[in-house]
Amino acid sequence: MTRLSEAQAAEIEAGRGETAPTRRAVAPALEEILYQALPVLDHGFIRVVDYMGDDNAIVQAARVSYGRGTRKTSQDEGLIRYLMRHRHTSPFEMCEIKLHVKLPMFVARQWIRHRTANVNEYSARYSILDKEFYVPEAEHLAVQSSQNHQGRGEAVDPAAAAAMLDILRRDAAQAFDSYVYLLNADAHGEPVDAGRPGLARELARIGLPLSTYTQWYWKTDLHNLFHFMALRADSHAQYEIRVYADVLRDIAQRWTPLAAQAFEDYRLHGADLSRQALDVVRRRLRGETVDRASSGLGLREWRELEALLAGDAS
Amino acid sequence: MTRLSEAQAAEIEAGRGETAPTRRAVAPALEEILYQALPVLDHGFIRVVDYMGDDNAIVQAARVSYGRGTRKTSQDEGLIRYLMRHRHTSPFEMCEIKLHVKLPMFVARQWIRHRTANVNEYSARYSILDKEFYVPEAEHLAVQSSQNHQGRGEAVDPAAAAAMLDILRRDAAQAFDSYVYLLNADAHGEPVDAGRPGLARELARIGLPLSTYTQWYWKTDLHNLFHFMALRADSHAQYEIRVYADVLRDIAQRWTPLAAQAFEDYRLHGADLSRQALDVVRRRLRGETVDRASSGLGLREWRELEALLAGDAS
Amino acid sequence: MTRLSEAQAAEIEAGRGETAPTRRAVAPALEEILYQALPVLDHGFIRVVDYMGDDNAIVQAARVSYGRGTRKTSQDEGLIRYLMRHRHTSPFEMCEIKLHVKLPMFVARQWIRHRTANVNEYSARYSILDKEFYVPEAEHLAVQSSQNHQGRGEAVDPAAAAAMLDILRRDAAQAFDSYVYLLNADAHGEPVDAGRPGLARELARIGLPLSTYTQWYWKTDLHNLFHFMALRADSHAQYEIRVYADVLRDIAQRWTPLAAQAFEDYRLHGADLSRQALDVVRRRLRGETVDRASSGLGLREWRELEALLAGDAS
Amino acid sequence: MTRLSEAQAAEIEAGRGETAPTRRAVAPALEEILYQALPVLDHGFIRVVDYMGDDNAIVQAARVSYGRGTRKTSQDEGLIRYLMRHRHTSPFEMCEIKLHVKLPMFVARQWIRHRTANVNEYSARYSILDKEFYVPEAEHLAVQSSQNHQGRGEAVDPAAAAAMLDILRRDAAQAFDSYVYLLNADAHGEPVDAGRPGLARELARIGLPLSTYTQWYWKTDLHNLFHFMALRADSHAQYEIRVYADVLRDIAQRWTPLAAQAFEDYRLHGADLSRQALDVVRRRLRGETVDRASSGLGLREWRELEALLAGDAS
Repeated sequence: MTRLSEAQAAEIEAGRGETAPTRRAVAPALEEILYQALPVLDHGFIRVVDYMGDDNAIVQAARVSYGRGTRKTSQDEGLIRYLMRHRHTSPFEMCEIKLHVKLPMFVARQWIRHRTANVNEYSARYSILDKEFYVPEAEHLAVQSSQNHQGRGEAVDPAAAAAMLDILRRDAAQAFDSYVYLLNADAHGEPVDAGRPGLARELARIGLPLSTYTQWYWKTDLHNLFHFMALRADSHAQYEIRVYADVLRDIAQRWTPLAAQAFEDYRLHGADLSRQALDVVRRRLRGETVDRASSGLGLREWRELEALLAGDAS
Repeated sequence: MTRLSEAQAAEIEAGRGETAPTRRAVAPALEEILYQALPVLDHGFIRVVDYMGDDNAIVQAARVSYGRGTRKTSQDEGLIRYLMRHRHTSPFEMCEIKLHVKLPMFVARQWIRHRTANVNEYSARYSILDKEFYVPEAEHLAVQSSQNHQGRGEAVDPAAAAAMLDILRRDAAQAFDSYVYLLNADAHGEPVDAGRPGLARELARIGLPLSTYTQWYWKTDLHNLFHFMALRADSHAQYEIRVYADVLRDIAQRWTPLAAQAFEDYRLHGADLSRQALDVVRRRLRGETVDRASSGLGLREWRELEALLAGDAS
Repeated sequence: MTRLSEAQAAEIEAGRGETAPTRRAVAPALEEILYQALPVLDHGFIRVVDYMGDDNAIVQAARVSYGRGTRKTSQDEGLIRYLMRHRHTSPFEMCEIKLHVKLPMFVARQWIRHRTANVNEYSARYSILDKEFYVPEAEHLAVQSSQNHQGRGEAVDPAAAAAMLDILRRDAAQAFDSYVYLLNADAHGEPVDAGRPGLARELARIGLPLSTYTQWYWKTDLHNLFHFMALRADSHAQYEIRVYADVLRDIAQRWTPLAAQAFEDYRLHGADLSRQALDVVRRRLRGETVDRASSGLGLREWRELEALLAGDAS
Repeated sequence: MTRLSEAQAAEIEAGRGETAPTRRAVAPALEEILYQALPVLDHGFIRVVDYMGDDNAIVQAARVSYGRGTRKTSQDEGLIRYLMRHRHTSPFEMCEIKLHVKLPMFVARQWIRHRTANVNEYSARYSILDKEFYVPEAEHLAVQSSQNHQGRGEAVDPAAAAAMLDILRRDAAQAFDSYVYLLNADAHGEPVDAGRPGLARELARIGLPLSTYTQWYWKTDLHNLFHFMALRADSHAQYEIRVYADVLRDIAQRWTPLAAQAFEDYRLHGADLSRQALDVVRRRLRGETVDRASSGLGLREWRELEALLAGDAS
């Protein structure tokens, strides 16, 4: 599991070694991990490459102020929580982050659905891809869920899991061998067999599996990062993107701790109640017994509400 | 090459059979092909599912008018060409189109980079994919270009092409067999082998190749459709997305013929000249001989300019 | 209060008189009011100029279907409510609406903050503005709120209100007289006084008040229309934009009644609970007495929660 | 002309005095002017409040590199010019800038039309506006252009200009007096006349002229900044927004000098030729005489082309 080549690790360390003075807002806890490859899955990572702003910048923009805003953390915290609670999103858009992410293509296809972001992806038309595929850990193999029609249910038994992983590994290896054969080129683009033509890169790659790793620079603002996290750290998200979202939560804690805490409290661990659900809560708090028939809720929503109020929900 | 199942074809025909009166702008030439699957590549298609506006709607919005705008085509044409020439893009945004597109995943990954659009994609977490892969025609197999570092050069000889296609077909078939085995489900989701577990859909699909077909509903406005066409109908675009862009050009001609013509003239077949290139042209028109040394242009841009002025460029 | 000139009314009626057959989805209740100027404030209006899709189009996109989707309203309703509840927003983006809106400039400045929309505004650089200003009804004049720092509190007494309105009317009339003098042009652009120069339109208008009416074509998708309505139909929004949002709610009911109802239930009349607020509700439902000290909530959020659970909140 | 209060100037200086070390990319020439109010018009300014990236960051993103990209300026310059020439816009989106801008409301209304940006504006619902209005310099007063239907023509004679400015000043002063009367509050929000009610801020401001200054935090990426500059530094843009665009050009030169130069060469001082215009150029270069009749161009476009080729155009 070589996540980084020696040359890549050296480039990263060189970048980390240099500092320069700036008049801009600095987030010290984020500087600590700047450029480092935070591991995700078997070959992936997230690297913070650049950022703009901190908690104070949110306050500064909300107040359209001439200086750096207040210096009293308690006031800043109150304002930031107020903004989050009332979904005043624009001050959170005033912070920006740039990441270098390595991720399997099927994860990339989910990730790219978030449109309010800037992206530069490694080009498989221009360059040759490395032999790196995502292969799940055996304990993450599971059957189709019978509850959540798009997710996973119970884990597969170890013997069946081992057989499944063998198939995934075998097919990926074969697809990569075919890729090299079609390209007729090694990792440096040099011909392997001078006697036959090599296929153009943009075509040779079409047989590679969706588990192939790609990488990109991805830049977004804090509000849209939170939105991404809200959708992708959710229990309904596919495990393989959820682990990226969890690393982003750690990054946000280092970068804008007050805003990140407000996000966790108001969005990630909060809940939306419909008019009907709110009515159920109000009636119960008045001592009334409410069953589904008198609630006006459908069966599915009723069960979701019962789980939520019992505290069972994620 | 079954592009549509019988049930799908019947659903489409049923939709085409029904009409209803509307007070909205109607584009008759686009109505003719509404819902039809316009074939692209070996299994793909573009279907126009809905649209809003026509050439007149562009004029109407540019004038913020109370009625349908002018009825004199010559005036409308002049205004539309003026708007296109001066890049007044907002009136073109007042027309909207919704497409159902079936396309290989590696094309989908290029397509989705256009962010100003709305997308609903067929979910391989929820549903089972069909056994449909893109396999190029032999004559489209080509070596890596030595000029354009991300494109194709000369065609591969027929014998080599046949061998390459065999590999692509073999690997795709094996990957699909593995998919069915892992799922342990047929196309209707029924278990094939009751004695062993089936893997969740979101995981079973990760071994499928990038040539697998997917499909989506995709909606955008006319300005962004033109922008898509400008980038993807370009000779530098990969052939497999260019053929989709070419079908879009036909659709635009049916929908908004005046705007589509203006787009072809000003954007697709026009050219950008830099300050330095413009200076070369001016000096030559004054009778001066200008060579690269006195032009201030780099070698690559000089060659591009020479080709452009000679009329060789696409 | 001449909202429309005779020529404008005639243009609108001419548009309403013509129908043509279409194969597209048609929303009959919306066709009924198509092009009509729905009055808002003293001179403003909203006109629906075009639309794409209906409730069924949401279902069709969510299923990426080949036909028009299901025809059973009960199934469609269940799916639409599920999508709204779980904030699966992309199917709602598949419906699009285009409006012609006449509104005071200070309202336009709030409205334009919604960026995911297309806009063509009447140009005061190119054209001469009409003498139309928003003057509030006396009963809408109120003092600054002491609770909501950006809103209105109690109504001003009638005598004071009358004096205030006189000032607003007087200043607006004077500003318009100055505008005509500076332009030295009548409504048709003809010079009034041949002996002196007229100021360019882009400059002459800078002295006009923010209450001056402007108009634009504005186009957005149903998801973003709902987002606009959620923010602008809220009790914290300024009254003068709230009345536009209320007309939009009526329009949505005609256009996509199932989606509009789901929006009202889940967004407009629903509520967000934070982690801490949810904890208060759970503890109370278990019979525990919770006061602010043990709730972990700030004073402001505590009061908001108490009002919400008592059913006092809007 | 007090552009900044003492308190504001002091806050700015305090911010400028502090530096901290960072591992991020730093643009030294931009650091020099960070937070300073660069004057525009009579009371306006642009302040750079924060930025992310530099020329090297464009290269780094285009290459999806692990380190800081190349260090050879000549290579970076070649790549940046190539990206600009071929409209590969995404690497330019990897740089971000945040500005604090003070500007008249009629300029703000043009500015806000650029949607791909983040904005926090000073709220006249929450706060009281200062007595600051834009009044043009006498030499900028001009008649409506007879050529460009939305711009200015010849300057107005000094006597007429003086009379016009008196009117603008008088009306603005009166509108502000009315504002204070309606609010019944001084600049600190304290009542002026305890005996009568004050109107809510959101209503009292509706009589203020479009020349009133507002301010906002505005954040965008380098590609969209260039797009803004291309449209607003153009000779067809209104003078009062063009002067802001010119300050942005200076800022871009300090921030990303290579990209800014490429922008000036390829976009700002370059030209688009249509298919027909390109044909005229090619034929002339082959020695053919082409007049309008044989050019296929309309009168207006023909004149624009003649001016362009003669080097008269801006």
